[in-house]
Amino acid sequence: MGEIAPKRSGGRKARRSSSAAKPRLTDYINLRHSLTPQQAFTQQTVEEMHDTALRILEELGLRILLPEAREIFRAAGASVDEETMMVRMGRDIVENALHTAPKSMRMRAINPKRERVYELGAMLFTCGAGCPHATDAVRGRRPGSSRDFAEAIKLQQSFDVIHLLAPATEPQDVPVHLRHYDLTRSQIAYADKPLFVFARGRGQIHDCLEMIQTAYQLDQDAFEDGFWATTIINSNSPRVLDSPMAQGIIDFARAKQMSIITPFCLAGAMAPITIAGALTLSHAEAMAGITLAQLARPGAPVSYGGFVSNVDMKSGAPAFGTPAQIQGSLGTGQLARHIGIPFRSAAGCAANTSDAQASHETLMSAWATLLANTTVTVHGAGWLEGGLTFGYEKYINDLEALQTFAELTNAAPSDPASIGFDAVKDIEPGGHFLGSAHTMERYNTAFYEPLIGDLSNYGSWMDAGGRTSTERAVDVWQTLLADFQPPSGCEEAVGRIDPFIAKRTEEGGAPILEG
Amino acid sequence: MGEIAPKRSGGRKARRSSSAAKPRLTDYINLRHSLTPQQAFTQQTVEEMHDTALRILEELGLRILLPEAREIFRAAGASVDEETMMVRMGRDIVENALHTAPKSMRMRAINPKRERVYELGAMLFTCGAGCPHATDAVRGRRPGSSRDFAEAIKLQQSFDVIHLLAPATEPQDVPVHLRHYDLTRSQIAYADKPLFVFARGRGQIHDCLEMIQTAYQLDQDAFEDGFWATTIINSNSPRVLDSPMAQGIIDFARAKQMSIITPFCLAGAMAPITIAGALTLSHAEAMAGITLAQLARPGAPVSYGGFVSNVDMKSGAPAFGTPAQIQGSLGTGQLARHIGIPFRSAAGCAANTSDAQASHETLMSAWATLLANTTVTVHGAGWLEGGLTFGYEKYINDLEALQTFAELTNAAPSDPASIGFDAVKDIEPGGHFLGSAHTMERYNTAFYEPLIGDLSNYGSWMDAGGRTSTERAVDVWQTLLADFQPPSGCEEAVGRIDPFIAKRTEEGGAPILEG
Repeated sequence: MGEIAPKRSGGRKARRSSSAAKPRLTDYINLRHSLTPQQAFTQQTVEEMHDTALRILEELGLRILLPEAREIFRAAGASVDEETMMVRMGRDIVENALHTAPKSMRMRAINPKRERVYELGAMLFTCGAGCPHATDAVRGRRPGSSRDFAEAIKLQQSFDVIHLLAPATEPQDVPVHLRHYDLTRSQIAYADKPLFVFARGRGQIHDCLEMIQTAYQLDQDAFEDGFWATTIINSNSPRVLDSPMAQGIIDFARAKQMSIITPFCLAGAMAPITIAGALTLSHAEAMAGITLAQLARPGAPVSYGGFVSNVDMKSGAPAFGTPAQIQGSLGTGQLARHIGIPFRSAAGCAANTSDAQASHETLMSAWATLLANTTVTVHGAGWLEGGLTFGYEKYINDLEALQTFAELTNAAPSDPASIGFDAVKDIEPGGHFLGSAHTMERYNTAFYEPLIGDLSNYGSWMDAGGRTSTERAVDVWQTLLADFQPPSGCEEAVGRIDPFIAKRTEEGGAPILEG
Repeated sequence: MGEIAPKRSGGRKARRSSSAAKPRLTDYINLRHSLTPQQAFTQQTVEEMHDTALRILEELGLRILLPEAREIFRAAGASVDEETMMVRMGRDIVENALHTAPKSMRMRAINPKRERVYELGAMLFTCGAGCPHATDAVRGRRPGSSRDFAEAIKLQQSFDVIHLLAPATEPQDVPVHLRHYDLTRSQIAYADKPLFVFARGRGQIHDCLEMIQTAYQLDQDAFEDGFWATTIINSNSPRVLDSPMAQGIIDFARAKQMSIITPFCLAGAMAPITIAGALTLSHAEAMAGITLAQLARPGAPVSYGGFVSNVDMKSGAPAFGTPAQIQGSLGTGQLARHIGIPFRSAAGCAANTSDAQASHETLMSAWATLLANTTVTVHGAGWLEGGLTFGYEKYINDLEALQTFAELTNAAPSDPASIGFDAVKDIEPGGHFLGSAHTMERYNTAFYEPLIGDLSNYGSWMDAGGRTSTERAVDVWQTLLADFQPPSGCEEAVGRIDPFIAKRTEEGGAPILEG
């Protein structure tokens, strides 16, 4: 019969109290893509887009606002017009940079369990990021604060499927010249995951990187053995790289930390209205950023990135989860694989509240990044209003999708006992498998248990208040925050940087670099 | 420059009033899969599941309650035990049936525009079906009525992406021996799409097929040239085929109408807890149904089907949109392609209202059927509570996903003008593409326009009442129903069957066949 365990009687209750059942162990940290990448374009079109992007860089060029960056390009042989700040780079320069850019990078965290290799094939997620506002059903929508930022870090720390920390919301109650202390301190105080640093000028970057080294007691060798911090670099499409972004690329490269180069190309607004055109422009700008990083320090960690969607032609607003965004994300994956560099793509959501539309948009766009085999999908949970607001209930609801994706990376068992001739043989026609030996051996580990999904029937659900999954999510995040305990070592780590923060604050902090 | 149209000035308003722009034409009827099918199992495992399913049929057999069906199997050489009603069929019988089952079938509709070829590669959808209840935000949740059924037909007729009619809700206010008249009459009165008939006994089936022939004035040749009606056949897993289902298979085959053989195999309840095991049992039962159809009339239209998900181990309730269902749907597609027969699979949703959970579940499961390249995805829109309730607002919200899938079947343009070197060249660094010639030529046709998605900003959205997409959907279905006009020819068609319905009603209708 192929069955070892004796048949046991007893229904649901017996099963639930069974001590023989193993607990269900999940590993949502070490995820690798298991689905076949989908293509939105033929390989020939991908090659044409790549070639056209190189032509854009060679013949049209980029306006690069930072003199230091122009000088780096000039020294490498690019044609630089100092008056117009236009930089035209030959494809040899770009191709050499694509060659020296590492294809596989060690992503560090103070908790070694959370270390990952950042490379094609890896599957990583961040929560919604960069939102000026925060919202929840209890306290309403408000400008993001230091408290909101810290709460969001705690909520990110609470789920293994969130692999890198991200600045969910902006702590607007902290002055800009001091804000980077708050952003870094909260991450070190409440989490043990890879860290995020904004590229807002050399002074802030240096402060942040110094805080990380101090908090984690890393000498230069340890700090440069893999990367501990990432930053997101957005070009100002079309074809402008502003000063803080250029400086961020240079400084991160020199410090061997990772910049993720991500043009935000809304088709029909800051990019051509065609998806192929938006991708080509985005590809050109991303390659220019990668090139600057490699020129600043050959071999520096750097990630390709893309964020192509369309504007809504009715409102002019960015749209997410649309057919255009899905095709854009698949195309981003094709272009990244074409140059062999791991990449960032994004889920997204334009809805104003965590409703059916919001889930539709985030899921549609998240499936696209999954099917593109995206290395890191940002804005995977909690993003509302096209990034203007981080929603606590939205965050909890979206995690269900990310955890489902994580589960899918495990192949379903396919050994003879799982195919189950004997299991079927054991049950009479018209019977049921609820108490069978085959079920008993597996019931506790077979299935994903929903985080927020409520599977009770209508009557029970109504008796419990008839609450939507958005309303129920309040309990989840409130409990998580109320019960939150920082990971071990956080208190000591943050203690090491508090004197630095006090001193630097007294000295006047570090100015934000504009445009 | 590759651009013909002159550059025009003017922003959004100018664009919207431009007469040069072509209207956006969509064809959501003639859809073919464009994504690569995804695999949940290796080809070797698929072969082992197929072989095991044949062994189940050969060695374990099915209990078939209808004597006429057992006689058909016996005459074909199967081993039949009349006492236990067990039928064991050799793989030669099954393999011969898989051989005679057509791989490509003409699906008819009174409107020739809605005809499709039912075959692997085609992409078809139905709305949520078989729900005892209906619900909407205005009238609340109630037992389905004749009015609700008719409204659901009108809502199905209103969207091209719904390809086959389905019994969204049960008209419980009509007695069961007369209900099939009501079900058929509403479909003929309000729609011009392929029709659905319940297999609830020979009398009802014959009445329905006669009504179709009469309404559409089809002689026997025309009626048998392709199929005009489908029915869903659910085996009583594990391994029981009840009398109405067996009779339905036989009668539909003899009338050359299509039965869709769909075991409902919840892993851990009526099927093994392993997805491979649930699929194998489902595959065995589906092949048995296909075999019965082919024995009843070789070459009769018949569809493979699968509906594998898991029970929630907390509540014992069916779960949808889960990792297990996704793997089950991908496996269903692999098994269907292994035997070369077009197939039905299903989206699903256990949520009790149209909230974020509901969208999550339906989208997760719908993506799985899409990635399985499912021929017809049932329950694609409007299914709540695991099929207990058809939700009007849920229906409208889910259509957004189906229309997005439809859009994805069109490849993004990839000609040189779309890749867009000239388009990029035309715009200064830091400029925008909103008014460019490249945009002007395409703005009206480039992007999908959301059905229910609201892309207005938070302030405008709040000013307009701050309504969720579920609340907004009320306007959509109310307007559709208020403005509904039956397709041309419906009035005449229904006029031809009203006398028949009156006569048969007077005669006492037709009894429903039980178990």
